[in-house]
Amino acid sequence: MQPGAGNFFEDFRPGQRILHPTPRTITDGDCALYIGLTGARQVLPSAAPVAQALGYRDRPVDDLLLFNVAFGKTVPDISLNAIANLGYADARFVAPCYPGDTIRAESEVIGLRENSNRRSGIVYVRSNAFNQRGDLVLTWARWVMVHKRSADAPAPESVVPSLPQFVPPGELPVPAFLKPSALDPKLTGSVALWDNFGVGERIDHPSGMTLEEADHTLATRLYQNNARVHFDEFAMKRSELGRRLVYGGHVISVCRALAYDGLENAFAIAAINGGSHTNPTFAGDTLYALTEVRDKWPLASRPDLGALRLRLVGLKNLAPPELRAPAATDGKPDPHVVLDLDYTVLMPRRST
Amino acid sequence: MQPGAGNFFEDFRPGQRILHPTPRTITDGDCALYIGLTGARQVLPSAAPVAQALGYRDRPVDDLLLFNVAFGKTVPDISLNAIANLGYADARFVAPCYPGDTIRAESEVIGLRENSNRRSGIVYVRSNAFNQRGDLVLTWARWVMVHKRSADAPAPESVVPSLPQFVPPGELPVPAFLKPSALDPKLTGSVALWDNFGVGERIDHPSGMTLEEADHTLATRLYQNNARVHFDEFAMKRSELGRRLVYGGHVISVCRALAYDGLENAFAIAAINGGSHTNPTFAGDTLYALTEVRDKWPLASRPDLGALRLRLVGLKNLAPPELRAPAATDGKPDPHVVLDLDYTVLMPRRST
Amino acid sequence: MQPGAGNFFEDFRPGQRILHPTPRTITDGDCALYIGLTGARQVLPSAAPVAQALGYRDRPVDDLLLFNVAFGKTVPDISLNAIANLGYADARFVAPCYPGDTIRAESEVIGLRENSNRRSGIVYVRSNAFNQRGDLVLTWARWVMVHKRSADAPAPESVVPSLPQFVPPGELPVPAFLKPSALDPKLTGSVALWDNFGVGERIDHPSGMTLEEADHTLATRLYQNNARVHFDEFAMKRSELGRRLVYGGHVISVCRALAYDGLENAFAIAAINGGSHTNPTFAGDTLYALTEVRDKWPLASRPDLGALRLRLVGLKNLAPPELRAPAATDGKPDPHVVLDLDYTVLMPRRST
Repeated sequence: MQPGAGNFFEDFRPGQRILHPTPRTITDGDCALYIGLTGARQVLPSAAPVAQALGYRDRPVDDLLLFNVAFGKTVPDISLNAIANLGYADARFVAPCYPGDTIRAESEVIGLRENSNRRSGIVYVRSNAFNQRGDLVLTWARWVMVHKRSADAPAPESVVPSLPQFVPPGELPVPAFLKPSALDPKLTGSVALWDNFGVGERIDHPSGMTLEEADHTLATRLYQNNARVHFDEFAMKRSELGRRLVYGGHVISVCRALAYDGLENAFAIAAINGGSHTNPTFAGDTLYALTEVRDKWPLASRPDLGALRLRLVGLKNLAPPELRAPAATDGKPDPHVVLDLDYTVLMPRRST
Repeated sequence: MQPGAGNFFEDFRPGQRILHPTPRTITDGDCALYIGLTGARQVLPSAAPVAQALGYRDRPVDDLLLFNVAFGKTVPDISLNAIANLGYADARFVAPCYPGDTIRAESEVIGLRENSNRRSGIVYVRSNAFNQRGDLVLTWARWVMVHKRSADAPAPESVVPSLPQFVPPGELPVPAFLKPSALDPKLTGSVALWDNFGVGERIDHPSGMTLEEADHTLATRLYQNNARVHFDEFAMKRSELGRRLVYGGHVISVCRALAYDGLENAFAIAAINGGSHTNPTFAGDTLYALTEVRDKWPLASRPDLGALRLRLVGLKNLAPPELRAPAATDGKPDPHVVLDLDYTVLMPRRST
Repeated sequence: MQPGAGNFFEDFRPGQRILHPTPRTITDGDCALYIGLTGARQVLPSAAPVAQALGYRDRPVDDLLLFNVAFGKTVPDISLNAIANLGYADARFVAPCYPGDTIRAESEVIGLRENSNRRSGIVYVRSNAFNQRGDLVLTWARWVMVHKRSADAPAPESVVPSLPQFVPPGELPVPAFLKPSALDPKLTGSVALWDNFGVGERIDHPSGMTLEEADHTLATRLYQNNARVHFDEFAMKRSELGRRLVYGGHVISVCRALAYDGLENAFAIAAINGGSHTNPTFAGDTLYALTEVRDKWPLASRPDLGALRLRLVGLKNLAPPELRAPAATDGKPDPHVVLDLDYTVLMPRRST
């Protein structure tokens, strides 16, 4: 029995449900390594007593560590033969994940569209991650371009799912236990709360982080993501890229960590509304980040808490103040922009 | 008092027993880092609930993490002055090791043979690793070529131990608590059980992994293995190798991780029958793996479980399908072959 | 609101107290990664049962892991705009830190002195680290050269604190619970106890460790130290150094790990009396270490325990036996010397 070569475009059918193998217990070990790999200083995954003061049972696992582990579970079935990870939408961080929890993932094919060249197609999936009690902790949609095994395989009927442009404020997952007023500014280093941010505001985060082959591969293996493109220099040398590609989820994690300065009180991610990896990232690139405030919402029956919809732009080899706009007027992304992520965070509101 | 320079060939005598220093508590932290370093997806060390369903008290520590930690303990006494690690035999994974367990190791010299050049000799040792309760968890034999301090030192009487070619099926350690039928194929991603493998079958594992100086040294330091050859580029530049050598145990771990695809239900290693590092591995090399099924055995009074004796061949910079045979007809290993490991795994049998 | 750019020289005033943000829970994950990053074999952080036999509640966190995490907390406020970390003094390891403890840090400005060029000045701080119960676990003084925002800012009155040359033996923190006689030489690999060391003695530690960009940055991110100089190759290429600088705390940690051979029974650091990073360390450098015994003290009412005051010299790209003296007669450090650390360890005494 030869091992599977992963699914090709013609292996997917609308409505198909896939249970992804190898559940994963996330532990303090993963949390420490995540801090080591990203430099994240977000306070909840960093400090158990602070998390407990806010109502959490323990330090929650960093939202993006959870995302990357859950995403990694889907790779062998969904994107082993992917040409490109085209986009994310409607990701909701439904419930906290704690060290010791075991995550499993499943996906449903929600759309298919063959490309006109007949050699590949776009697969849309909705993926869900559950903990060991079967509670949904994270759900997200993504679409990837996947090779066909054979150009002659018949094209499926095109189904393109309708996905929301953003998770509406009324649907943001907000734990009932949350006591955001416990987030003392002395613990995070900033007095800037929800009230202090204005729509349209831009924050140029000061830090930069140079990536190495050893650290992006360490991160991606930690997530048990086995896509060849990240690991196999020997094969990649013969590919169009010419070398190993940094996993996009690691780019998101590093940019979120860089964005700590200026968003210190954005203690949790509630949703990822959309995102794309606009240019490839390679070892040797230095990542920077800037944030634009897209929207701000109070939250019903939570006078102590607000949501900010943010645009997180990841740059390579260009300090944020030198970027005029993430995209030129023709819509083409600036060659320095590697990430354009639309996400929503929770932040305490000033008591009045 | 100057620190010891390690033992030389003439420091060993047959029957000598050595208690190796610095016991090591293995934790969730080591387990996470092991996954990060190897990309291992073997289900038991990955998922506590799956391990518990099979009867384990908790996630067991990955068999090869245990092996590498225990091996590392022996290095300062046995192989600090080794020229080459010549082989392994009769390794038995006697009992599971769990996060929180503390491992100590001891060795007995079971053989000695001076080389004809009188400048070095072969030391054969049987090493045993125990947990904090004094239970044997792992035992193995290995032989190493060790420098003599002085060519004039008298040669000891040659003693070459008789070691089994493989651990016979009747002696394989099989935990009594094991419930292999709990290993749902949906958890591992494959329906291929013991029954599906045929003697002589070959599996070309699809993934490759490029090694970096930073990751093989991180792994080897984690095991507290302090052999200079892996760490000291300044000294190695002046050596015959010209650079740092990747620790063979890391090569084994990476190849076992690569071999997940195609052997998803090989949930535990029962024995390492033999093995050799046929060519050196360096940072920059991309490792691949192929498996040959050497033998298959039912296990007495266990209709739910079988053993497969496997040959795990590690390749560098050559995709497995391009390798005809691990060794040429003259017995010389192919220059791409870096590892030739004979080991035995446990796998569920189909209920009939 | 743009993120803070860190404090400049004129932002500090004598007596100012700063609570550093983002407390940090240190876990088994950090301890494992610390071993992986340094190769440390010190027995207490390695083996829980040994630590417990000596009277500790659990494996203590490695002294220098605690130091580096606590130090990292102070960086955003104290040394983000530092030109150089000039020295340490009077560091006392007051109480053990255990996995699960959460560390927060605060600093008091104890001295200020503008440089004659008026473009920078020296800031002296006393920093204290506390656990989640508010117990002081570590205190230290350091002084850094910090840029001024504006050369025109008025100079503060010069205040240069008086700091002890070393922590006197009567003030060394010694846990009352300590049972050093439980430290069996078989556990550490050496029979050399306090009694065996003589003042003036020099130990050339045999091992060397080559640093990589990926491992020093992994360590420094783990400590949540966000000083740009360690991470941002893109910016550093345009700096005078021309490249990323290895964080001095990582150099200390690696040298302490290298110094295991020859000081196996130096089970805890009681104090850091002083230290300086005499030359920069970069990725690619191979570190070595040598130790000089500066002083040895019995400890009042502890006939089972003594203290050694040691000079730990870190070298790059030069084997210790080739270094005559750490400094030339003119006091200028040898170009191979990167670390000159004066610290005090605890070691069991021979029962008489």
